[in-house]
Amino acid sequence: MDNRSLKSMKARQPTSFLFDLDGTLVDSVYDHVLAWSAALQEEGIEVSIWRIHRRIGMSGGLFTRALARETGLEFDDATLTRLRALHAKHYSAHSANTRPLPGARELLKYLTDTKIPWAIATSGRMLTAGPVLKILGVDPDKVPVITRDLVAYAKPDPDLFLAAAEKLGIEIETACVVGDSIWDMLAAQRARALGIGYLSGGYGTDELERSGAYRVFEDPADMLAHIDEVGGRR
Amino acid sequence: MDNRSLKSMKARQPTSFLFDLDGTLVDSVYDHVLAWSAALQEEGIEVSIWRIHRRIGMSGGLFTRALARETGLEFDDATLTRLRALHAKHYSAHSANTRPLPGARELLKYLTDTKIPWAIATSGRMLTAGPVLKILGVDPDKVPVITRDLVAYAKPDPDLFLAAAEKLGIEIETACVVGDSIWDMLAAQRARALGIGYLSGGYGTDELERSGAYRVFEDPADMLAHIDEVGGRR
Repeated sequence: MDNRSLKSMKARQPTSFLFDLDGTLVDSVYDHVLAWSAALQEEGIEVSIWRIHRRIGMSGGLFTRALARETGLEFDDATLTRLRALHAKHYSAHSANTRPLPGARELLKYLTDTKIPWAIATSGRMLTAGPVLKILGVDPDKVPVITRDLVAYAKPDPDLFLAAAEKLGIEIETACVVGDSIWDMLAAQRARALGIGYLSGGYGTDELERSGAYRVFEDPADMLAHIDEVGGRR
Repeated sequence: MDNRSLKSMKARQPTSFLFDLDGTLVDSVYDHVLAWSAALQEEGIEVSIWRIHRRIGMSGGLFTRALARETGLEFDDATLTRLRALHAKHYSAHSANTRPLPGARELLKYLTDTKIPWAIATSGRMLTAGPVLKILGVDPDKVPVITRDLVAYAKPDPDLFLAAAEKLGIEIETACVVGDSIWDMLAAQRARALGIGYLSGGYGTDELERSGAYRVFEDPADMLAHIDEVGGRR
């Protein structure tokens, strides 16, 4: 290869990271599972808990529609509104005890110190996400945080991550989407970003890889220990 | 093949089923996860919840020893005793609301009606297992139930399943072990039984297959719908 062909090579783009919140930066997936389970039980709807677990992270609207399809039940709009309110009530009762996942604060600090752009994009609404962002030490006035309130469709649609990239002023094709659920990985593919999966939401490695993760780590601490492997060098 | 070689063939043995309890017949895995999480938090021990989930179903002693190794902490005997008591307290507070998994009662009834031997073998103690057996409609005086109280080592050691086979009066090599966790599948292999995995405890298909499941179903209802495929014909 001579110098001319090297010069015509597409310029290498710096990496950026678009993080999911629940199960990725904070240890809140199981609280969401139990909150949905309690909400459904209050409405007399029988759903096995593992089926709820496997749907956490997707848009609340798609979640209830998928449940309706799987259970063969029809939920009217009033039921859906009550379910969402019951979930928020049960979840909020526990979210004060939510803890950041190991290494989450350190990873975000490393990226900030290294001037690597990052943002948070969650299928949750600011009502439920706000308190855990505070626990994580993230100020939505200083860091780009995209919640369900700001886009038309949540995950596995790509809108949340597209909006996060736009707010960072970066091209989505240069970004990595970091999440714990297959909905993050599917949304990453639809957005043409690279997916990085974490085991910290309770999915297995294989499930994340099959939905598109190009790399799987245990949690933020594990990714920070291997940050050079995913474009995070200083 | 002539008739003589057919006659010398090893006799086909009837199948029997040795069931795990939590996450396999009753929807209690997530309650155990949260009970352990609350117990550990009360003792000031920080462990991510997904790591607890992935250890449910193994012997309580091995569980706490594994946590000690992973967290780098040392737990003295008094701490271990307190942890076990706190787990039992938190779990018992919720276990009255535990529901049988879909198809669990129907599957056990089918096996009983069809005279296919079955038993239950759980890493839990009768103290915590008793109430959920009642919810499931299983009377330990009539059905072989092997709990942690009756053997020296729980899963992934094979003892529980060996004891269950003995109580049924069958050869373990002719039995199927049915469970939702990799600890069931590993114990099945060590006991030389065939493993059947269920997704209803929250593990993924791949995790169960890699730990030895020769077949994976969603839950008891799914297995009952495919019972002919695993030797359950009348």
